[in-house]
Amino acid sequence: MPTRGNDIRYEIALASRMLAHEGVLDAFGHVSLRHPDDPSKFLLSRSRSPQLVEAADILEFTLDAEPVRELPHKLFVERVIHGCIYQARPDVLAVCHHHAAAVMPFCIAGVPILPVFHLGAASGAAMPFWDQRDEFGDTNLLVVKPEEGRSLARALGPHPAVLMWHHGATVVGGDLRELVSRSIFMCQNAVYQLQAHLLGKVVPLSAGEARLAGSLNAMPNVVGRTWEYWSHRLAEAGRLPPAARSKARSPARPAAKRRKRK
Amino acid sequence: MPTRGNDIRYEIALASRMLAHEGVLDAFGHVSLRHPDDPSKFLLSRSRSPQLVEAADILEFTLDAEPVRELPHKLFVERVIHGCIYQARPDVLAVCHHHAAAVMPFCIAGVPILPVFHLGAASGAAMPFWDQRDEFGDTNLLVVKPEEGRSLARALGPHPAVLMWHHGATVVGGDLRELVSRSIFMCQNAVYQLQAHLLGKVVPLSAGEARLAGSLNAMPNVVGRTWEYWSHRLAEAGRLPPAARSKARSPARPAAKRRKRK
Amino acid sequence: MPTRGNDIRYEIALASRMLAHEGVLDAFGHVSLRHPDDPSKFLLSRSRSPQLVEAADILEFTLDAEPVRELPHKLFVERVIHGCIYQARPDVLAVCHHHAAAVMPFCIAGVPILPVFHLGAASGAAMPFWDQRDEFGDTNLLVVKPEEGRSLARALGPHPAVLMWHHGATVVGGDLRELVSRSIFMCQNAVYQLQAHLLGKVVPLSAGEARLAGSLNAMPNVVGRTWEYWSHRLAEAGRLPPAARSKARSPARPAAKRRKRK
Amino acid sequence: MPTRGNDIRYEIALASRMLAHEGVLDAFGHVSLRHPDDPSKFLLSRSRSPQLVEAADILEFTLDAEPVRELPHKLFVERVIHGCIYQARPDVLAVCHHHAAAVMPFCIAGVPILPVFHLGAASGAAMPFWDQRDEFGDTNLLVVKPEEGRSLARALGPHPAVLMWHHGATVVGGDLRELVSRSIFMCQNAVYQLQAHLLGKVVPLSAGEARLAGSLNAMPNVVGRTWEYWSHRLAEAGRLPPAARSKARSPARPAAKRRKRK
Repeated sequence: MPTRGNDIRYEIALASRMLAHEGVLDAFGHVSLRHPDDPSKFLLSRSRSPQLVEAADILEFTLDAEPVRELPHKLFVERVIHGCIYQARPDVLAVCHHHAAAVMPFCIAGVPILPVFHLGAASGAAMPFWDQRDEFGDTNLLVVKPEEGRSLARALGPHPAVLMWHHGATVVGGDLRELVSRSIFMCQNAVYQLQAHLLGKVVPLSAGEARLAGSLNAMPNVVGRTWEYWSHRLAEAGRLPPAARSKARSPARPAAKRRKRK
Repeated sequence: MPTRGNDIRYEIALASRMLAHEGVLDAFGHVSLRHPDDPSKFLLSRSRSPQLVEAADILEFTLDAEPVRELPHKLFVERVIHGCIYQARPDVLAVCHHHAAAVMPFCIAGVPILPVFHLGAASGAAMPFWDQRDEFGDTNLLVVKPEEGRSLARALGPHPAVLMWHHGATVVGGDLRELVSRSIFMCQNAVYQLQAHLLGKVVPLSAGEARLAGSLNAMPNVVGRTWEYWSHRLAEAGRLPPAARSKARSPARPAAKRRKRK
Repeated sequence: MPTRGNDIRYEIALASRMLAHEGVLDAFGHVSLRHPDDPSKFLLSRSRSPQLVEAADILEFTLDAEPVRELPHKLFVERVIHGCIYQARPDVLAVCHHHAAAVMPFCIAGVPILPVFHLGAASGAAMPFWDQRDEFGDTNLLVVKPEEGRSLARALGPHPAVLMWHHGATVVGGDLRELVSRSIFMCQNAVYQLQAHLLGKVVPLSAGEARLAGSLNAMPNVVGRTWEYWSHRLAEAGRLPPAARSKARSPARPAAKRRKRK
Repeated sequence: MPTRGNDIRYEIALASRMLAHEGVLDAFGHVSLRHPDDPSKFLLSRSRSPQLVEAADILEFTLDAEPVRELPHKLFVERVIHGCIYQARPDVLAVCHHHAAAVMPFCIAGVPILPVFHLGAASGAAMPFWDQRDEFGDTNLLVVKPEEGRSLARALGPHPAVLMWHHGATVVGGDLRELVSRSIFMCQNAVYQLQAHLLGKVVPLSAGEARLAGSLNAMPNVVGRTWEYWSHRLAEAGRLPPAARSKARSPARPAAKRRKRK
C-alpha cells in the first residue's frame, strides 16, 4: 500500500512541523510513529530539523532502532529513545522527544510539572523525572546506548511524559494527534505554572479533576478544532510539508487551490 | 433583513479573529452577540477555532443554548456560558469566554486581577473568582450543564468579567467593540500586574480613578482608534474573515483588491 | 516650502511607525515635532494609532495645543502634553508619549528606571515620576487640561524622560532621531532592569559612566546604523508610510523600486 | 582567489544575519573571521547593523584593527575587540561581540552564566566577567582603545566567551559555524538559567557533563542540522544576503531563482 504509506509519512512530517511551529520543537527534537501495519517497526525522520521534515525523509526502523534498509542518510543518534519506549509500552503508538523552552526551566531546577489547567491534565497528574547521571554517571547527556533508552523507558513507566534532567522531555501518545495536543498543552501548562509560581503559589488540579480532564484533549470536538487550527497556522506560514510524491491526499493540503490553476 | 444579518455575522467573525490575533483567544474560546432583533436569542459560531470563524459559521441559539435550527454542525459544548449570562444580565449584549495566557497564572495562583493602569480599569475595580469545584465537586472543568452556567453567571454578578479557577475567564460587554477592547486591555493589565508584582509591589488605581477610567475604552475617540488599529493589524496579516455572501460591506475589507480581479 | 513641509511630515510618520514597530507605541501613544520654521508651533498627527499615521495626518498646533487651522479631524485629547513641554523646554524639539509594555511595570510598582546598560543611559541618570493624583486627585488619568500638562512638564524638569504613575511615560529629544533611539533604548533598559532584579540585584551604571554613555545614542556612527536598521525593519514588514504627495523624498523609501515600474 | 574570497565574505554576512535572525544580534554587534590565508589579518563588516551586512561590506583589517586599504566607509569603533583577541588567541578563528537581550540581565546583576543544559555547555563550564571600570575607571563603556581590547582579551583568557559588565558579551570560535551555534546556545542557556532561578534553584551540569557536552555543538550531525535549520529560517524570512558579485556559490543561496531571470 504505497499510497497509505505516503499518507502516513506525510502525517508524521505534518506533526513534526506543527510541533515546531507551535514552539515545542526547534532545531532539535523528533517525532516517531509505530508502524501501523507492523508493531515491531517504527517510522522516524532522517537526522533533520523537524520544521524541514518531508514525507520522503521518513525512514523505517526496527525496535532496536536499526534502519530496516541500508541508506546513505544521517540518522538521529538518539533514536533508541523511540525504540526502547515502543518495546516497553505496547499501548504507545507515537513518541516525541523535545527540548522545548517551556519545560527547560523545570528540567534545570528539578521542579515537577503539575497539571494546573484543564488541558494541561493531558500529560498526567504526576510526571516522572529521569536523571541519566544516576545510572550512567557523567555523559554528554545524549541518549544513545540501548541501556540508556531502556532506563529512560523505565522512568517513563505508564505515564504520558517524562522530564529529563538538563535535557528536555519525552512525550508519548496513542496516535499522532493525541501526541501533538499533549505536547503543546504540556508546554502551555509549564509556562502557566512558572508564572503562577511567580505570582505566589501553584494550586494544581485536584486528583479527581486531573483524571476527568486528562482526556479532554482526545475529545473529538477538541481534536477536530485543534487539528484544523494548528494545520491552518502552519499553512498560513507557508510551512506545510510538500505534497507526497504519489496520490497521497491529506485534508490539510490546499488541494482545491492547486486544482484551480489547471 | 438578510444583509444586516450578514453584516452582524461578519462583525462577530471579525471580533473573534481580532481577539485571536491580539492573543486573547487561541485554539479555544468563543465570542457571542445577543441577537439585535430578538433579545431572547444569541449568535455564536459553530465549534471552530476563533481565528478561522467566518460569517457563515455563526448560528442562532435560544437562551437555553439550543440551536434554533437543526444543523449538522458540531457545537461548542460550553455554549451555556453565553445563554446563562444573557438570561441573568439583560444589559449584556456580547460575551467572550477565553483561556488567554495572560490571565491563566491568576486563575492558577488564585490572585485577583486589579486595575493597574488606566485602560485596565475597563474590567472593573474588583473581579470575582468562580471555582466550579465549590458547587459541583470534581469535574473536567468544562461548563456544560445549565446549572453550571447559571452558577458562573451568579459569580459574575454585575461585573464586567469573572475569573474561572484553572480554566480562564469570561468577559461581557454592551456591544462587540466594548467587549473586544475590554478583553484586550484586561489581558494587558494582567501582564503588567504580574511584572509589577515581580518588581516589588502592585499599587492599583484608587477606587475613584478606577471608576473614572473604567469607561475610557468606550470613548468614541478611543473606540475609533483601536478598532481601526486592530482591524488593520488583522488585514495586514491576511486574517480578515472572507466577505459575507450577500451585499454585506465592512470598512475593513479590501474591497478595492477584489474589484481588480474582474 | 511645501516640499520640505511634506518631508518633515513624512519623517514624523516614519518615526511614529518605527516606534510602533519596535514595541514602544501600540494602539496608543503619539510623536510630535516642534515646527522647524516656527518654534511657537508643533506638528502632531490627528487621532490615529501611530502605526497608521501618514504624512497627510500631521497637523499644526499652537503651543496651547490648539489646531492652527479648523479641521474636521478628531484630535488626541492629550495633546497638551506636547504643547506644555515645548513651552517649558526651549531645548526640546521632539516629544513622544507612550504606554510601552516595558515601562508599565515600573509605573505600577513605583520603581525608578535606572541606567543599567550603556545605551540605556540615553534616558538620563535619574528619571522623575509624576503622579497626576498628587495635584488633581482622582481623574481618569488622561492629561487633558493645560494645568495637567504644565504639572507634567514641571515634573519632567530638565530630564530626558518622565514616568507617569499607572499610565506610561513621556520622552523628549533634540530631534526625531534622538527621540526615537532614546525611547527604544529606554524600553530595552527597562526590560533588562526587571530581569536583573529577578536574578538578584540591579547594579546601575556609575554616575560618571551614565554621563559619558548618555550621548552614545547621538553619535553619528550610531545614529546612521540604527536609523538604517529600524527603517529597514519597517520596510521589510511593509509598514513604511505611503510616499508624500509632492516631490518629498526620504532615504528610507524604496525610490529605485518605484522608478522601475515606469 | 577572488571566488574564494567572495565565498568567505558571503559566509560572514550569512553568519551575521543568522545571529541577528535568531536574536543574538540586533542594531548592534559584529562578527569577524580571521583571514583564512593570512592569520595576521581579519575580516569584518563596515559599520552596519548585522542583519543588513552583505558580502561587499566585509573589509580587511590588520590585527591592530586598522583597515588594510583606505576606504571611505564608516568603521565600527569597537573593532579592537576582534584584533586584540586574534592577537592573544592563535586558536581563535572567529569572534562575535553582542548585546543579546538574553545575556544582559546577567551583565547587570553580575551573576555568572553556568551551563544548565547539554547544548549550553558549548560556552564552557565557567565564564569570566570583565568590568572595564576596574582598569579604566568611568568610560562610555565602548571598547575603543587598544589597551581596552587587550584587557578584555586577558579577561577572556582560554575561555569560549566573556561577559562584559553593563555591556554584553564576546564569544569566540574555531570557525564561523562553531561561533554561531555557541552564541545561540549560550543565549538559550541564559534564558533557561534565569527561569530556573525563578522556579527555585539553578542546578548546573556537573564538571564532567559540562566537559563531555561541551563539544556537542561541533558534532557533524549537529552542525549539519543546525546550519540547515538556521539558513532555512533566514531564507524563509527573505533575509539571506544578496548573492556575491562574482561566481561565488553557497548552498544556502536560492540559485534556481536567479537562473530564471535570464
